[in-house]
Amino acid sequence: MSVAKVISTIHEQTENGISEVYLVACGGSLVDMYPSKYFLESEAQKVVTGLYTANEFVHALPKRLNKDSVVIVCSHGGNTPESVEAAKVAKQRGAHTIGLTHNKEAGLLKYTDHPFLYEWGADSDVKNNPMAIILELVVEILNVTEGYAHYEAFKNGIQKINGIIVEGKKLVGPRAKAFAEKYRSEELFYILSSGASFGHAYGFAICSLMEMQWLNAAPIHSGEYFHGPFEVTDKETPFILMMNEGRTRALDERALTFLNKYAAKVEVVDAKELGLNTIADEVVEFFNPVLFYSILCVYREELADIRNHPLETRRYMGKVAY
Amino acid sequence: MSVAKVISTIHEQTENGISEVYLVACGGSLVDMYPSKYFLESEAQKVVTGLYTANEFVHALPKRLNKDSVVIVCSHGGNTPESVEAAKVAKQRGAHTIGLTHNKEAGLLKYTDHPFLYEWGADSDVKNNPMAIILELVVEILNVTEGYAHYEAFKNGIQKINGIIVEGKKLVGPRAKAFAEKYRSEELFYILSSGASFGHAYGFAICSLMEMQWLNAAPIHSGEYFHGPFEVTDKETPFILMMNEGRTRALDERALTFLNKYAAKVEVVDAKELGLNTIADEVVEFFNPVLFYSILCVYREELADIRNHPLETRRYMGKVAY
Repeated sequence: MSVAKVISTIHEQTENGISEVYLVACGGSLVDMYPSKYFLESEAQKVVTGLYTANEFVHALPKRLNKDSVVIVCSHGGNTPESVEAAKVAKQRGAHTIGLTHNKEAGLLKYTDHPFLYEWGADSDVKNNPMAIILELVVEILNVTEGYAHYEAFKNGIQKINGIIVEGKKLVGPRAKAFAEKYRSEELFYILSSGASFGHAYGFAICSLMEMQWLNAAPIHSGEYFHGPFEVTDKETPFILMMNEGRTRALDERALTFLNKYAAKVEVVDAKELGLNTIADEVVEFFNPVLFYSILCVYREELADIRNHPLETRRYMGKVAY
Repeated sequence: MSVAKVISTIHEQTENGISEVYLVACGGSLVDMYPSKYFLESEAQKVVTGLYTANEFVHALPKRLNKDSVVIVCSHGGNTPESVEAAKVAKQRGAHTIGLTHNKEAGLLKYTDHPFLYEWGADSDVKNNPMAIILELVVEILNVTEGYAHYEAFKNGIQKINGIIVEGKKLVGPRAKAFAEKYRSEELFYILSSGASFGHAYGFAICSLMEMQWLNAAPIHSGEYFHGPFEVTDKETPFILMMNEGRTRALDERALTFLNKYAAKVEVVDAKELGLNTIADEVVEFFNPVLFYSILCVYREELADIRNHPLETRRYMGKVAY
């Protein structure tokens, strides 16, 4: 079923319209949900949202969860126990569940009213990847429940974003190679961004660097940088700054000005330079993280390559009991 | 005015009751708000909440903000430009503003309908510090708008928490000294916790370690640890785990089991051992971060002392332009 059809079906089944949307997942899948949390918190006047790591959702279920709630759960392999459990407790509470996974045999599907089996891999159009699908789901929910003035502009952005990414990847190819060469021996990175992209600052830190490269890393919100974190800034510490298009760009620019003065190892990935501004001003900010995810994949591949540490290498995940 | 009086005054001024509570601040003051966000997201069925670093709030103002909203802004010195601006834009939108500061000359007060000049310092009762005051404010809002079944239990906890902390500080004195001795030469720490205390995992990382000690640090949610971050775990990397009392304790215990097996440098601060369970089960979890803040202050003082790096040392904050 299409995104629009799923949401209209759910909406018709609710008593008073969809009242809240819970975004529930773990790690990389949770990262894919952050732009949707940001979107609803920014744009909605009625619909409520909450973002939860699955095990916290299971153990500390929000009292607000009810029969008019939609719970979106995403799990790439589809069998993350706490994500499956989250869908289960959501259904027990009578909520509508939407499950996203890449695995058609996923345990998650057992507790999913509306499944989305998404595409994955470097060749897939990003609009068929979970970050964009979840964003489309919440945009649809907003539009159905209270109307969304920039619905058409958003839909237009969804059609454009993959093309922007294809060009952007070409542009950053050589500089990602230079980045990997320059930073190959570093042991720690700070990742800065703001707005819809803060989730991907977190994601690049915990998934791409910590999980896939066993490197130390931490996300810093560009707005928070000046209220504590910036005291670690020096000429030796590496920073990656993802500069957004849209309303929070001023926060990233302020961080850049400071970094240019007091740091020496600064890698900037700029959505403006990458051509994101061909998407309409009213919605462009929500597409930053979709762009950054794909662009930063180029960086992590070069880093993995030069460090002889393939992105698939794990010592604990899926290998030991936990 | 008392917390109860302020909230009833605001509530009477709204058209349909208080509909949302925005918690807006930067750095350490934002950390003080996290338990209140967690409380409302968990307990409320109608009142909506949002937590924002001030500059993001200013640049990407939520459309939901209206005349029935309460915006709580906290700034210790009271003149953080983006926090003052946040209160200003909130008032322009017609919202009710509550400002907390330690400075009676604060610029923040200019845009504050209801000011709280809070106590500060090692000798003050924690119930008069911002974290507890903000928590009391949101508990009062919940009680006034839709009723809170455990209101009396919460009030009872507020009366008890300082005594628990006084005893807890004595207990951890020697082990904080041993911690500082053992970890004096470390350059990076990961701070784990869950539930209401995740904000303080963030706070200890960005304020106590990054800002005050120029040490690298990152918070990790105990539930997220197993979905990426745990791949950096080894016998050399230090972890501080704050174990909560209450519903999310299971998440912290799972992290502890793993750390005990695969890490060697693990410092545990356990709310159960520190006697937090004399507070009623229904509300105990909301008091974890109040306890952890004060207890971890003992740790950071010992660390500052042994490293000859006083907690007040800054190279950028308040010293250079940014």
